[in-house]
Amino acid sequence: MARVLIIGAGGVGQVVAHKCAQVDEVFEHITLASRTKSKCDKIAAMLPRKIDTAEVDADDVPQLVKLIEKVKPDLVINVALPYQDLHIMDACLEAGVHYLDTANYEPPEEAKFEYKWQWAYQDKFEKAGLMALLGSGFDPGVTSVFTAHAKKHHFDRMQTLDILDCNAGDHGLPFATNFNPEINIREITANGRYWDNGQWVTTKPLEQKRVFDFPEGIGEKDIYLLYHEELESLSKHFPELERARFWMTFSANYLKHLEVLQNVGMTGIEPVEFHGQEIIPIQFLKALLPDPASLGPLTKGKTCIGNIIRGTKDGKDKIYYVYNICDHQACYREVQSQAISYTTGVPAMIGAKMMLEGKWMKPGVWNLEQLDPDPFMADLNRYGLPWQETWLDQAFQ
Amino acid sequence: MARVLIIGAGGVGQVVAHKCAQVDEVFEHITLASRTKSKCDKIAAMLPRKIDTAEVDADDVPQLVKLIEKVKPDLVINVALPYQDLHIMDACLEAGVHYLDTANYEPPEEAKFEYKWQWAYQDKFEKAGLMALLGSGFDPGVTSVFTAHAKKHHFDRMQTLDILDCNAGDHGLPFATNFNPEINIREITANGRYWDNGQWVTTKPLEQKRVFDFPEGIGEKDIYLLYHEELESLSKHFPELERARFWMTFSANYLKHLEVLQNVGMTGIEPVEFHGQEIIPIQFLKALLPDPASLGPLTKGKTCIGNIIRGTKDGKDKIYYVYNICDHQACYREVQSQAISYTTGVPAMIGAKMMLEGKWMKPGVWNLEQLDPDPFMADLNRYGLPWQETWLDQAFQ
Repeated sequence: MARVLIIGAGGVGQVVAHKCAQVDEVFEHITLASRTKSKCDKIAAMLPRKIDTAEVDADDVPQLVKLIEKVKPDLVINVALPYQDLHIMDACLEAGVHYLDTANYEPPEEAKFEYKWQWAYQDKFEKAGLMALLGSGFDPGVTSVFTAHAKKHHFDRMQTLDILDCNAGDHGLPFATNFNPEINIREITANGRYWDNGQWVTTKPLEQKRVFDFPEGIGEKDIYLLYHEELESLSKHFPELERARFWMTFSANYLKHLEVLQNVGMTGIEPVEFHGQEIIPIQFLKALLPDPASLGPLTKGKTCIGNIIRGTKDGKDKIYYVYNICDHQACYREVQSQAISYTTGVPAMIGAKMMLEGKWMKPGVWNLEQLDPDPFMADLNRYGLPWQETWLDQAFQ
Repeated sequence: MARVLIIGAGGVGQVVAHKCAQVDEVFEHITLASRTKSKCDKIAAMLPRKIDTAEVDADDVPQLVKLIEKVKPDLVINVALPYQDLHIMDACLEAGVHYLDTANYEPPEEAKFEYKWQWAYQDKFEKAGLMALLGSGFDPGVTSVFTAHAKKHHFDRMQTLDILDCNAGDHGLPFATNFNPEINIREITANGRYWDNGQWVTTKPLEQKRVFDFPEGIGEKDIYLLYHEELESLSKHFPELERARFWMTFSANYLKHLEVLQNVGMTGIEPVEFHGQEIIPIQFLKALLPDPASLGPLTKGKTCIGNIIRGTKDGKDKIYYVYNICDHQACYREVQSQAISYTTGVPAMIGAKMMLEGKWMKPGVWNLEQLDPDPFMADLNRYGLPWQETWLDQAFQ
């Protein structure tokens, strides 16, 4: 029986609060905090049992420490912004509590996510007898556990890994972005990168495209190579991997909109002089687009995220595909958020549960693939993200 | 030998000033006026002979009258904004000078162009012994004269008229608009309309599309039905016409950009609340897009504007096509403007010349198709807009 402090009351925070509240045998006491307390109160009002709410500026370490000392959680679940990871880790160390997040640290002024800043906390957490679990969302998170599961049960040696992230949801609007449009647009306009025979290979934005026939009626979708943060930790923790890539689906319509918005300068981040004011185009675009939160009730269809791994077992070549299918409307009915937030929030709760139940408790800073996948895989099936596995005849080229 | 006052120093004003300056046997003295005198001075500095420049607010009738009385022109050539037509007509009546424009009056707050406001000046101009020539650009203007020429020389009876406006120019940029983007976008997002057996038929924006194989190597282009102002006067002045339509080419790329900009709300004219300010999206878009004036030196390729007329002559069915081909780069070399402004500015000069030479001088308010086409057609060939005629085997469906 444990106490948790969840920091962040966006879409993912809402799912984490819902899912923790459902598992009262582990999460005895829950506090939800964010910069805007009213957002926490709104979420609290949706839940089946009472939780506490609080206001906190996650950029302010002394304020965080003060809140942690008041709430006395066993664990802080950080679902705030990636820029705030280090501040929250510092506060956990100072207050002596465990830490979990879903996305790795990014310096605020650089679009450059890397684990190095957080991995540098290894000694501090170990010496303090505290654990920090990094990237306990879906990708990274579940995709990391899928890889560890594949290695443990199905392969002597893994050769190639392809993570395929498909969102086949349709909100019925001509254009909208699921997350913060700034982050969404940056993801697509950045160079791609993948691991190949011991080194990183850079591709132009959206340069590599495949068509993949997704299961359960989703069907053929265009899928593009991107860089994604789990490639860094997976290539480090499974050095046997000759190649590791990450792919995400984008519809032709979505890319058409982004292409035009880039062409006319609407995705720019430099201020433009307009009627004597300085306007940052992408921020004005964000003001025009539908609020991502408003898409929840509108979105129909499914997501399918999983790993295709090629390797050998008992001297035989095998191509293994493990994935989860998640239905946007089913998620919305359960937690009033669609599948994009759901697939991140549920693994955060399960990661927290693994730590609090002692199944994964281990001082230091860890990525999910470094821990035993079995109890986590079992809980995915129990708590709303059931997985399926299959063996393919053809490799993903 | 005459004196003219040109009001408006945009792209068209620049061409009119150039062309009038070339014809010094008619335009002895030229004054160019606009709200911003520096724009006039910049144009004046490009010309082969000296002209005067002046500042004037074309919305201010007393100020206009004062300028006209000072300059003492025989004729005012109005190439200012369509919203200002009536003010300038009023000033001409008060000061006792002739009037010419290239585009009909639009009330500032309604996107609704109609001749009724200007035709209502018929009696006033007639009684004053003054002439007002309406719509002496290319379309309306040359297309009106083309129709009168066809009727005079090639048909006993005209049955259908299709005006085809093709801009096959390429500025090499991903997206830009030729004229003021607000006007350009409004043109495309408005309903289409055409004359059919005595009544107007409305179509949805871009609903009617054809592919036409344009001459002189321009080749096949998508062309869309729009409403254009000459349809009103041509269907009135040639009541024999069973059908009259106007078509304009737009590339798939151009329409893709407009579709996306509409989808995200960037073409909206209602203010949007942004960081405590009110921003009108289309005005912000305009600030992001390349200045139409900057396209001149970049634009390559040709325009082709002309009329296809089906009718009978001596009991035989005939399909007649008369058109002008204009080369963007040739225009730019001659007057430092590309073909879009050139094809409007040259006919304004020729219309003025027709009036000042007495060939078209006639008190009252007139559209170009009401006057003898022959001298105007001859001057098109002389002053940079040569036309060609041909007979087609197939009607334009």
